[in-house]
Amino acid sequence: MNMNINFSQLIEWRREFHQYPETGWAEFWTTCKIADYLESMGFEQILMGTEIINPDFVRGRHLSTVRQSIEKALVNGANPKWLDKMQEFTGCVAIFDSGKSGKTVALRFDIDCVNVSETKSDNHKPNQLGFSSKNEGLMHACGHDGHITVGLGVAQWIMQNKDKLSGKIKLIFQPAEEGVRGAAAIAASSVLDDVNYFISSHISFCASSGTIISNLKNFLSTTKVDIRYRGKPAHAGAAPHLGRNALLAAAHTVTQVYGISRHGEGMTRINVGVLKAGEGRNVVPATAEIQLEVRGENKAINQYMYDQVVQMVKGVALSFDVEYETEIMGEAVDMVNDPELIAKVEKIASQLPQIHTPNAEYAFNASEDATILGRKVQEQGGKSIYFILGADRTAEHHQSEFDFDERQLETGVQIYTGLLADINSK
Amino acid sequence: MNMNINFSQLIEWRREFHQYPETGWAEFWTTCKIADYLESMGFEQILMGTEIINPDFVRGRHLSTVRQSIEKALVNGANPKWLDKMQEFTGCVAIFDSGKSGKTVALRFDIDCVNVSETKSDNHKPNQLGFSSKNEGLMHACGHDGHITVGLGVAQWIMQNKDKLSGKIKLIFQPAEEGVRGAAAIAASSVLDDVNYFISSHISFCASSGTIISNLKNFLSTTKVDIRYRGKPAHAGAAPHLGRNALLAAAHTVTQVYGISRHGEGMTRINVGVLKAGEGRNVVPATAEIQLEVRGENKAINQYMYDQVVQMVKGVALSFDVEYETEIMGEAVDMVNDPELIAKVEKIASQLPQIHTPNAEYAFNASEDATILGRKVQEQGGKSIYFILGADRTAEHHQSEFDFDERQLETGVQIYTGLLADINSK
Amino acid sequence: MNMNINFSQLIEWRREFHQYPETGWAEFWTTCKIADYLESMGFEQILMGTEIINPDFVRGRHLSTVRQSIEKALVNGANPKWLDKMQEFTGCVAIFDSGKSGKTVALRFDIDCVNVSETKSDNHKPNQLGFSSKNEGLMHACGHDGHITVGLGVAQWIMQNKDKLSGKIKLIFQPAEEGVRGAAAIAASSVLDDVNYFISSHISFCASSGTIISNLKNFLSTTKVDIRYRGKPAHAGAAPHLGRNALLAAAHTVTQVYGISRHGEGMTRINVGVLKAGEGRNVVPATAEIQLEVRGENKAINQYMYDQVVQMVKGVALSFDVEYETEIMGEAVDMVNDPELIAKVEKIASQLPQIHTPNAEYAFNASEDATILGRKVQEQGGKSIYFILGADRTAEHHQSEFDFDERQLETGVQIYTGLLADINSK
Amino acid sequence: MNMNINFSQLIEWRREFHQYPETGWAEFWTTCKIADYLESMGFEQILMGTEIINPDFVRGRHLSTVRQSIEKALVNGANPKWLDKMQEFTGCVAIFDSGKSGKTVALRFDIDCVNVSETKSDNHKPNQLGFSSKNEGLMHACGHDGHITVGLGVAQWIMQNKDKLSGKIKLIFQPAEEGVRGAAAIAASSVLDDVNYFISSHISFCASSGTIISNLKNFLSTTKVDIRYRGKPAHAGAAPHLGRNALLAAAHTVTQVYGISRHGEGMTRINVGVLKAGEGRNVVPATAEIQLEVRGENKAINQYMYDQVVQMVKGVALSFDVEYETEIMGEAVDMVNDPELIAKVEKIASQLPQIHTPNAEYAFNASEDATILGRKVQEQGGKSIYFILGADRTAEHHQSEFDFDERQLETGVQIYTGLLADINSK
Repeated sequence: MNMNINFSQLIEWRREFHQYPETGWAEFWTTCKIADYLESMGFEQILMGTEIINPDFVRGRHLSTVRQSIEKALVNGANPKWLDKMQEFTGCVAIFDSGKSGKTVALRFDIDCVNVSETKSDNHKPNQLGFSSKNEGLMHACGHDGHITVGLGVAQWIMQNKDKLSGKIKLIFQPAEEGVRGAAAIAASSVLDDVNYFISSHISFCASSGTIISNLKNFLSTTKVDIRYRGKPAHAGAAPHLGRNALLAAAHTVTQVYGISRHGEGMTRINVGVLKAGEGRNVVPATAEIQLEVRGENKAINQYMYDQVVQMVKGVALSFDVEYETEIMGEAVDMVNDPELIAKVEKIASQLPQIHTPNAEYAFNASEDATILGRKVQEQGGKSIYFILGADRTAEHHQSEFDFDERQLETGVQIYTGLLADINSK
Repeated sequence: MNMNINFSQLIEWRREFHQYPETGWAEFWTTCKIADYLESMGFEQILMGTEIINPDFVRGRHLSTVRQSIEKALVNGANPKWLDKMQEFTGCVAIFDSGKSGKTVALRFDIDCVNVSETKSDNHKPNQLGFSSKNEGLMHACGHDGHITVGLGVAQWIMQNKDKLSGKIKLIFQPAEEGVRGAAAIAASSVLDDVNYFISSHISFCASSGTIISNLKNFLSTTKVDIRYRGKPAHAGAAPHLGRNALLAAAHTVTQVYGISRHGEGMTRINVGVLKAGEGRNVVPATAEIQLEVRGENKAINQYMYDQVVQMVKGVALSFDVEYETEIMGEAVDMVNDPELIAKVEKIASQLPQIHTPNAEYAFNASEDATILGRKVQEQGGKSIYFILGADRTAEHHQSEFDFDERQLETGVQIYTGLLADINSK
Repeated sequence: MNMNINFSQLIEWRREFHQYPETGWAEFWTTCKIADYLESMGFEQILMGTEIINPDFVRGRHLSTVRQSIEKALVNGANPKWLDKMQEFTGCVAIFDSGKSGKTVALRFDIDCVNVSETKSDNHKPNQLGFSSKNEGLMHACGHDGHITVGLGVAQWIMQNKDKLSGKIKLIFQPAEEGVRGAAAIAASSVLDDVNYFISSHISFCASSGTIISNLKNFLSTTKVDIRYRGKPAHAGAAPHLGRNALLAAAHTVTQVYGISRHGEGMTRINVGVLKAGEGRNVVPATAEIQLEVRGENKAINQYMYDQVVQMVKGVALSFDVEYETEIMGEAVDMVNDPELIAKVEKIASQLPQIHTPNAEYAFNASEDATILGRKVQEQGGKSIYFILGADRTAEHHQSEFDFDERQLETGVQIYTGLLADINSK
Repeated sequence: MNMNINFSQLIEWRREFHQYPETGWAEFWTTCKIADYLESMGFEQILMGTEIINPDFVRGRHLSTVRQSIEKALVNGANPKWLDKMQEFTGCVAIFDSGKSGKTVALRFDIDCVNVSETKSDNHKPNQLGFSSKNEGLMHACGHDGHITVGLGVAQWIMQNKDKLSGKIKLIFQPAEEGVRGAAAIAASSVLDDVNYFISSHISFCASSGTIISNLKNFLSTTKVDIRYRGKPAHAGAAPHLGRNALLAAAHTVTQVYGISRHGEGMTRINVGVLKAGEGRNVVPATAEIQLEVRGENKAINQYMYDQVVQMVKGVALSFDVEYETEIMGEAVDMVNDPELIAKVEKIASQLPQIHTPNAEYAFNASEDATILGRKVQEQGGKSIYFILGADRTAEHHQSEFDFDERQLETGVQIYTGLLADINSK
């Protein structure tokens, strides 16, 4: 097979996407651009909208942001053809069907950015080379621009080698990984129904250039929840007893949920990350909003935490006679990489001259929604892996000064295509 | 009319009752003894049991204590005839019916003691004169032995003057005033249905010998509530998540109820006086008990406090998935003394040589369940008063060293009989 | 004396000030305009800046708002002479000194607006007549434009009658009444040191046109406090134990302060009006801000509430190992109107044909910082009053649709000038 | 060596100790009886009192119980010689010194009972055979009577084989294992200073007859803490603001400590097992007591939990202006069995015909204070094991109906003596 990768093309793509970052469920320009490239490479099946998104499982999507982003995407030159097809849901799945029997492999690349303003510093390469973010307040500070790029590199390779391949390959360009909001909706569509292998990865994170963490462990299952209380205002001096105090309900919710019993069978986490309540100093507060997350060492323990939170919200709402609503804003599960795929990744990585450590392990102790996709494939009897593509970086993920070693985009394409060459060779 | 009072008889009665103190709803010996005296004086109607007690409104009564106290009363020589009649409920009402038209007046005397061990000190008159409590751990340390005595003194006077009286007189010997537990059950019987005037009083309290507080003000309405939670135990190390934590529920109840909003229309109070929870250090606590009280400047505000407490108990029980029960253990309301009766008391008191201040006012800021009886009479169109019969004392009420100036028993009888002479003269 | 009032002039002033509302401590254009008018009327002493403001007692003033408002005031034509004199502090005090012996009287008019957007409705008279707010998001929705107007009307009358007056008159145009933030700084200057009578009022509120509430009662003492916690962020999944949780500290602060014990000697209030905490869902929250207020039936009870809050903030900061700061953002005290001034107001009002009820009473159960000024005068041996100038209104105070019966501006000037005619006649 | 064990002697001992159960730090009769037996067997060094107990590390010992138990022990025939030597501290250590070079081995047997009333049921063997508890309310319901018995059996074997042994053997009869209160004081004495091997075990627990859990894992480090608050009483109606509410402080302590952040590096536990507070319903509560425990996957994590609790207690005491004290009532650490000793136990057990499973593993997820002794030996460079001696039982540990398969006492002696034969053979 043709193993040549056009490195300067990868750089070009990455820098283009870096300039137009879009947040989760708002990646309209990004999706259109990806689809344009895929189409131009020759992909015939590019699925979008409810073909790949089950609306009932969409998490943390704000319709006003969606609408504004569509407008902006048009201004920035997005192809209206795709916008129509998307039905207001971002992301796309390109399917390559060799027409020959063989395995079905799904590769997943996440495409959203974070709410970070890119540094203006002259030391920052995107500033020096003129490819920094054109969308104020938004930045690809987590490296998903790199993920898109690797996906396009793999797509190109597929088309270059299409006659040598068997089975089916699905390239999933997933929206809204930040906040673990996007995967559940794809998992609940039919995209993965026939998939035998699921492969995904993150660039950089805890590994420098030359290292592949082939066995990332200790994913925490997690659910992200928003809680909203609505009470009744009243004058705090003259008639406080007529109020229904949403802020007080929220405070008691916080003191209750942190006290959810530890679980005898594994680790748990609870974090109330944001609390906003009240309208004015001298008014009994009528509204409150809590943004929290729970985690567990496994799905069942995370579910226990979530169930306890909901139980307490109901109880507090009853205590303070306020209305409540809870909304799941994101979710991920735990997953264990399959040894077969770990071995394949390590074998491929060990053959790359730029890789000195092809087989590192790492305890993640955090959450990633690719696990929802990977677990679904495993539950169907398939195999899944999520690995770390080591890459030097200039700052922590999500910081204004973040940039990564672009040479590792090539490494990424090499590993994915190596896996495809292994699994889908005719 | 004959206004002579047999002072040495009063002293004898008081010292006898002082030796056999019984707590609320356990005054079996006391009630029998009162009934014996009333019968021997010539009272023909002595009501007891469900004639005067509505069982649905009995508060804070423990059946095991009741049974033990009946046994003990028998041992101490209680008359079995009365015990039969009582149907396990203490207290009695003696009715004098002149057979002539006139007003119906109810006088109320409370008869229970407190859980205090009487001092062994030689300085304590009951020890010097050999009439201290024979019931270990119990003591008439609030002066209700004096109240009984005044009631008997008044009863004797009625019989001595029966031909000169008109209307009806009801002498209510009420159980369980401590904890404001007894009045509600009498108020819910028919005892007060035909009453025009209601008169009651307390000895000593905030007034020394020579002073009558004719206008006691600022009674607080109150409800005493017990709350019990039942959860599920679990090993705190191995499986804490299987427990249902009653202690934690109780703690959150406490933090919630103290935060009940102040009321715009008047003062409120909340006190969680006792909390007991848990079985052992390393077991998730399965039981918890809270003893609390709420108060309000008036009935409606007290009801608001009570309703909020119950609402919060329900909410906390839901939050922590524990069972709950609430039980009203006592209650009292607010009451305003009627000016007509204030004037009568002041006039009578001002004619007694031992009284130098017949007309004091005092803000009580506490609770007394005679108010339930008094308010019922007022709501029927009658008039009520609750006054303080000043008496020097040797210690605070409810202290081991408490004793009062016995000479004021005579003052008490004089005021009550003065009122009867005024209202019920032929 | 000349009792004619130029009503059309009052209307013109009110409508001019209505168009340029400025919030507390930002009333630069307003103060300049008032000073221009006072100077043109002939006032020679117009005090400003630290002559009338003690910076140590300035509450709830934001320097960035101050700076922006100065810029805007210049754009809107404010007189730079006054801006220099103000030293960044708003408000002014005009002094009329008759040169003759007599009483010193202080009249106080508050000048700030509220953060309310004026309605766009055609039914709203300011829209019909073209004098609605030109400052987006700000509105004279409490009627302080009317207070300024009455002050200017009184100023004009003083100059018209200056030869007939004795003693001294001080017209205090006070900043930042909203949030009770401005009076403390004036009280702590020397402005009131020689004052014998203090008079202030509010338009409309609880009284319609034709009514004067000469005896406003039940002012609640209050303190407005901001509390800020600073903790330490940490990843909520990987290392939550390294965080210092400011949000959790804030929640526990809320549950503690609502539970501050009721006070046996009078009413209290506590309201946590606003709580904002946290940076993101998956980060241990490092910052939290609470805006609260306490109130008490009198100064001592309010102080008790404030002391308890501060004690609890210290305790919670210790529990959660976070840094804290508390800042007093506003304050007012309780005050009892002096009978002498009540009588004077009633007498004057009863002589006005448009007044049918010159002597109403009302329990305020709210707070107003004129009380700080009034109490200071009373504590010096002087006399004070705060009355309500009844005026029909189209909506509640602080609502977008608020407007008041402008004819009562004349009534206001008549009452103030009537009082001056009474007290300061030669 | 002589491997014969006198089984009927073991039964006799066990049933004797079963009749006289004593709680932790009160095992005076028990210690005297053990010492009598040891002395009669020929042990010359029997250490007691401060020779083996460092008073600074004694946890959860109540002096009044100690004094009463000494009296009772005398009545029950305890040898006064030993009582003198004990200096009011229970437990003893018998030392066998072979006089020859070799290893020093410490075996530890815990000797206290629990606060459980033994069942009266006829189905209960101790009732059928007449050896049930003579100490009302106390029972060897955890099997420590068996532990003592095994220790005496081993002692007897040592004396029978003393000429064939090398090195030193220390038999530690430890008080107060229940509540993990006794080990710390022994560890802080010099008893273990020269020890190379530490061996201890528990009978029954999670293993039935025929099974040895040679590798008990997941011991949780733990600290048991009592917290006491002292506030100030006040009348809840008249002057609640004068109180200092210890119950409210305790409730807030509970809500705070349950919310201590999970630890990123391992499991934690928190349990408030008992809370008692308050004196009466209508009094602001002046006293409160909390009994809690924390646990952690390791010593550092447990220390983190303990430090957080103490920090919160200080903070709450400051918030509510109450006095506090904290007292450590017990403690244990985590420990990992040494492979060398696991292998030895398994080898010995596998040679016993009655054992079918000599090598089970089990995750304990609970706490045992033998770990403090074992860890100390390991930190000195020695080796330690804590294993489970499987034995059928008739009920859960700590239940009234608990009894165990006495035949396994012989198994116990066989394993311990097998280990000594292996390690201390000449």
